[in-house]
Formats: sequence, C-alpha cells, structure tokens
Amino acid sequence: MDIKKINDEIDDFVSERNWGKFHKPKNLVMALSGEVGELNECFQWLDDEDIENVKNSPEKKGAFEHEIADVFIYLLRIANKMNIDLEDAVYKKLKLNKLKYPVETNQGVVNKN
Amino acid sequence: MDIKKINDEIDDFVSERNWGKFHKPKNLVMALSGEVGELNECFQWLDDEDIENVKNSPEKKGAFEHEIADVFIYLLRIANKMNIDLEDAVYKKLKLNKLKYPVETNQGVVNKN
Amino acid sequence: MDIKKINDEIDDFVSERNWGKFHKPKNLVMALSGEVGELNECFQWLDDEDIENVKNSPEKKGAFEHEIADVFIYLLRIANKMNIDLEDAVYKKLKLNKLKYPVETNQGVVNKN
Amino acid sequence: MDIKKINDEIDDFVSERNWGKFHKPKNLVMALSGEVGELNECFQWLDDEDIENVKNSPEKKGAFEHEIADVFIYLLRIANKMNIDLEDAVYKKLKLNKLKYPVETNQGVVNKN
Repeated sequence: MDIKKINDEIDDFVSERNWGKFHKPKNLVMALSGEVGELNECFQWLDDEDIENVKNSPEKKGAFEHEIADVFIYLLRIANKMNIDLEDAVYKKLKLNKLKYPVETNQGVVNKN
Repeated sequence: MDIKKINDEIDDFVSERNWGKFHKPKNLVMALSGEVGELNECFQWLDDEDIENVKNSPEKKGAFEHEIADVFIYLLRIANKMNIDLEDAVYKKLKLNKLKYPVETNQGVVNKN
Repeated sequence: MDIKKINDEIDDFVSERNWGKFHKPKNLVMALSGEVGELNECFQWLDDEDIENVKNSPEKKGAFEHEIADVFIYLLRIANKMNIDLEDAVYKKLKLNKLKYPVETNQGVVNKN
Repeated sequence: MDIKKINDEIDDFVSERNWGKFHKPKNLVMALSGEVGELNECFQWLDDEDIENVKNSPEKKGAFEHEIADVFIYLLRIANKMNIDLEDAVYKKLKLNKLKYPVETNQGVVNKN
C-alpha cells in the first residue's frame, strides 16, 4: 500500500477545501468514531448468511468498502498529526501482542489482561 | 506499507492461538469499536497543549501508537473477511469524496449531505 | 424518568414492526455504537463557541437531542435484554467510582487505573 | 428513575475531585465513546449461548452492568451540558421514529432512510 501517495491525496483534498483548521487530533478521533459508527450500521442487523451474500456481491459491498475506507483515511490522518508511523506502529504492536497472549495459555480462549 | 506481510503475521498470530472461530465479521467490527474506544480514552481529557506534548514525547506516545495499530489491525482483518482490498477501497472513496464535496461550495465549511 | 413507560413504548414499537428478531444483544450493541457515532458526527467539527450556540438554539439543538435519545433507547434496550436494572446499575457504579477515584489523590487530575 | 438524584450525585462526584474543567461536551462525547468501546469488549467474542449464561449469572454480569452504567452516566452528563432534557428528548424521538418507520412498510425489515 502506497501510504505516501494516499497521504498526498488526502493533504491535497483537505488543503483545497481549506479544511485544515478542522483537522485537530481530537476532532479527527471523533470523525473516526463517526465512521466506525457507520460501519457498525452496515453490519448491525445482518446475520451470517446476509454477510456472506454481501461479501460475494460487488454491488452490495459498496457501502462496506466506503466505510472501511473512511475509517482508514481518518486513522492515517490521526497517525500523521501525532507523528506516528502507522506501519512501524503495527509491527511493534504485533510483537507486543505475541508477548501479551502466549500461544500456550490462549489456545482457543482469549484471556483478557 | 507491506499489507501482505502484515496480513501474514496476523494470520499466523490468529491460527497459532486457534482464534479463527472468534473472527467473524461482526465480532471483528465490535473489536474495532473497542479499540477505537481505547483511542478515545487516550485523548479524551487532554487539551491541545497536552496533545502537543504527547506528539513530541516518544515515551508518552506509546499508548497512542498501540491503539492506532490495534484499530488498523482489526480494520484490515474486517476488510479481508469481506474480500475487500483496502488500498483499492481507499482510492475509490477519495475519488468519491472529491465529487461529494466540491471545492467551490466547501471552502472552509463542511456541508453534510 | 418513567423507565417503565419508555420501555413499554419501545416494546410496542418493536413488536408492531416485527423487529424483535433483530434485537439480539450484540446487534443492539452495534446499533448503540452506530448512534454514538452519529452523536460524534454532530460535534466533531464544532469549536467551543459553536457548541455554546447550539446549546442556546432550540432549532440547532434538534439533531443533538435526537442522537442522545437514540443512544439512550438502545442502551435501555440492551439493559433489558441482559436483565439489568439500569437505575440500580448506575447507583452501584457511582459507589464504585468513589472508591476507584479517591478524592485526595484525584484532585484536578484523572489517575487511570 | 430519579434523574435529579443521579445528577446530583454525579455533580458532587465531579466537583469534589475538581474535574469540572475536563467535562466539556466534546470531551464527554469522547468519554462516552470510550465506555461504549468497553461495552463492545464485553460482548465481542461471546456467542448467543455465552450471552445467555452471562444474563443468568449475577457474578458474570457485573462487568456488563458497570459498562452500561458508565455509558448512561456520560450520556446524562452530555445532555445536561447541552441543556437537553433526556426524558423529553426520548419521547420526541420515539414519536419521530413512528413517522420515520411506518408499520406497513417495515414489517420484519428495516428500510434505512
């Protein structure tokens, strides 16, 4: 995934509309929460079979793609505003998760800690 | 960003713990909502100056990096389960946003529609 | 607040539309997340002065009232489905919060634990 | 439900800790999102049978009660800060929902609009 290109597109989009003033970190976290809310709304009343049908239908899948993209766009924007490298953060967290949830003690169960 | 590599790491992590049974799309959307909640908790009581301090402090920034990574990991997982290509979805949505929010009528304001 | 009357109204609303099948606890939590997302969208780009204006304007306040009501309606619905008495749960939690955050050590700061 | 009493308890709790400065409307919406995230975390990996077991177990139900209470406490706090009467807002919204989703055209289906 070409993060630099996506970032440049978002930067242009925001600056062309003079929306930079809105993009404070807390506002962006609220916008992210809004988009995650919309993703929830896509799924909330569907059962497993409905979801399988969505998955296999390019037409039905459109709204789901849009909401997933919106969540990503705001997440990337928050990372940038906080000087956080998203890819680097992901590898660090995956490493941490392996320590936090040892294979032996988490077989088929999730032990919250 | 090497999405394939990240996906492979997540796949291994999940299958080693026999957690595949938990990763139904709706469960993953709920887990995403949980992580976005934790990101909100990082920011909720901070003012602009506090956030600037976090941004400039590698130690303070840790929790923010972890939550951002967790949001990304679940988002990517949802995309995979729905057969959605995240990068492709982002470009499609950025194109749509340009049509939805014309430069001329959105100067410095957000016109919801 | 007449919780019994509100509950009865919601029960009638749901059964008249034959929507009971949708109202499983997890679905309702997702619907709650959706409404909280919409409440976030009401606030996300507003600054303190904008919010003060909303607060003092019955017309502007409508959308905020609707989203707050929607959050409450789903929250109450979840409590019912889980056999949880909302009022009782609130008093229990307020008591717990007093123990969790002692007055002396939390003066003007929030010590997460 | 004695909203006045609950409000008084929350007011005292906040002022005793000198936390009023944190309780700006947007901060409270973020805190609400955080608590809804925690409620999602309670439910995310449970299947229908697990949830039935929680429902029937006072011990297991504790965490669910706490998160539901936390969501309510922040929601009420937001309503107060916005000069919104929660009960009044709920009745208005229930009336609106009846118009928005006519009984005839929503039998067993949810028509988003």
